[in-house]
Amino acid sequence: MRILGIDPGTSVTGWGVVDGVGNRLLHVANGCLRTRTADPLPVRLDIIFRGVVQVIQTWQPDTVAVEQVFVSRNVESALKLGHARGAAVVAAGFNSLTVHEYTPLQVKKSVVGYGQAEKHQVQEMIRLLLNLSAVPPQDAADALAIAICHLHHQSPALQAREARP
Amino acid sequence: MRILGIDPGTSVTGWGVVDGVGNRLLHVANGCLRTRTADPLPVRLDIIFRGVVQVIQTWQPDTVAVEQVFVSRNVESALKLGHARGAAVVAAGFNSLTVHEYTPLQVKKSVVGYGQAEKHQVQEMIRLLLNLSAVPPQDAADALAIAICHLHHQSPALQAREARP
Repeated sequence: MRILGIDPGTSVTGWGVVDGVGNRLLHVANGCLRTRTADPLPVRLDIIFRGVVQVIQTWQPDTVAVEQVFVSRNVESALKLGHARGAAVVAAGFNSLTVHEYTPLQVKKSVVGYGQAEKHQVQEMIRLLLNLSAVPPQDAADALAIAICHLHHQSPALQAREARP
Repeated sequence: MRILGIDPGTSVTGWGVVDGVGNRLLHVANGCLRTRTADPLPVRLDIIFRGVVQVIQTWQPDTVAVEQVFVSRNVESALKLGHARGAAVVAAGFNSLTVHEYTPLQVKKSVVGYGQAEKHQVQEMIRLLLNLSAVPPQDAADALAIAICHLHHQSPALQAREARP
């Protein structure tokens, strides 16, 4: 099963593709879609939408996972994040893919084992779990973590393996 | 020039199409896209995205206008509104249409003449300006108001006519 995890943001949208093969996690690809602050919001959302569509068409995931968000720093940042998530989520629907949502707590627990993990701990665990030669950029690491979280929820075998390495 | 105005919301997304012909405003169509609260957010956003794409492909507007939003009741409603706006805005970009944004103040001033207008005043003015037999539903009326606002900003002749009926 191939999962695309997405960590949306108006400035940087991280993405990561992970295969779950038996009880193994295999890294496929990851990256970041970047937009310019100077551009109008519709242009930035178009870049996110088209970027996610291109990632889907290139890597052909079976399903998509994004982080569920209930809170934000303030109303302005909530509006921004909502726009970016909206653009990313409809890109998945446009490609007839189901979108699964996980809370930040579920994602962190799934990767690091506890919900209060720091960003750099998530990055380092992603490197270890996926056998990468270097730590991926933060937004891409978060996206890979979301993809892994979905695989863990689909396959308890994977979760057991990660819990007892 | 044919304008599609959109008033996005996760529950109800109003839309309205208006032609500007010389110094006249002509009503073309209006309606509401409704989603079910019980459905997951990705499903609701998909309904908004596909609905707006269908409206664009049916009515073939030259450009799209939406209300610019800076404030919201709280973080939760800002996230919801952001998602819905994101879905609607990328539907326009998907059809290679430019999206213009206007503040609520600009929209109300453009239609009613002053920025503190009540919802029902906007609805009644839309009925008068577009020569409709009945007041359109609130979300559709707001969408028509946004379309008219864009036409006014494109053609000062239209604005002068409305200001001195």
